Amino acid sequence: MLGKTYDSQVCSMARALELVGERWSLLIVRDALFAGVTRFGDFQHNLGIATNVLASRLEAFVAAGIMERRDILGHPRQAEYVLTDKGRDLAPAMVALTHWGDRWAAPGEPPIVYLHADCGGEVRADTVCERHAPIPAGEIGVRPGPGMPAAYLANRRPRRDGAP
Amino acid sequence: MLGKTYDSQVCSMARALELVGERWSLLIVRDALFAGVTRFGDFQHNLGIATNVLASRLEAFVAAGIMERRDILGHPRQAEYVLTDKGRDLAPAMVALTHWGDRWAAPGEPPIVYLHADCGGEVRADTVCERHAPIPAGEIGVRPGPGMPAAYLANRRPRRDGAP
Repeated sequence: MLGKTYDSQVCSMARALELVGERWSLLIVRDALFAGVTRFGDFQHNLGIATNVLASRLEAFVAAGIMERRDILGHPRQAEYVLTDKGRDLAPAMVALTHWGDRWAAPGEPPIVYLHADCGGEVRADTVCERHAPIPAGEIGVRPGPGMPAAYLANRRPRRDGAP
Repeated sequence: MLGKTYDSQVCSMARALELVGERWSLLIVRDALFAGVTRFGDFQHNLGIATNVLASRLEAFVAAGIMERRDILGHPRQAEYVLTDKGRDLAPAMVALTHWGDRWAAPGEPPIVYLHADCGGEVRADTVCERHAPIPAGEIGVRPGPGMPAAYLANRRPRRDGAP
């Protein structure tokens, strides 16, 4: 967990990155969400990370309400780590990052294809407008929302090209 | 940049995180994409990060083809850092992370609302099926794609709950 690293930023993406922006975090959630992994040893086997790093990430996920720790009957020293609704809701961000990697960062063809469990159709995370069909990134603007403090906004350097 | 940290993972999300998963990376792209920031001093002012960290991130973005460095006429020691198509294409992942933060990690109401520049409608990043309307995260499965090495797949621990 990055903790308060981004404290100066009035930004929900910064808040998200404080919880899931640390090394390995999203790959742990990936294995939990899409591979059904729940046990410490299985996460460790698949990811090959140091056990102290994995323990720290799982503990932080539990503290943040992203995972729940559940006892396993008959195995008093083991536990399962299961995503909560909050954790499962990271799926769109993970699908979007994967498709960016497919297009721009992976060496060959896509190693994984996301599917709609209902129909087998391919799943993507696209930007969609509430009034229209999916829209390209270049057509996305921003405006302050109801949670934006005026003083924070006033201190932000504006764009220099005169665009809105 | 995380560099080869995730080298063991056959995963386009891991490849993406190697390029944009380091601290501050996505907040720099955010300011470039949605606030129109291009200059070192403006990034530094808005983010309040150490200049050596910012310099390292911008340099890595240029090396990765996420940004281009452009000279500013009449200012021989300054430069502009401008997103490429590869950089701008991070928008869906950033919008998805922001909405997760709005729902699960931010203290109050959304500080920023993404807009469709064409019509002013709100923009979201939803998971969509090629055959259907937007679908919930719980209905997303995965299958190996054409880029998945068989040996890598064979060594992955399967889910233990019997689900597909």
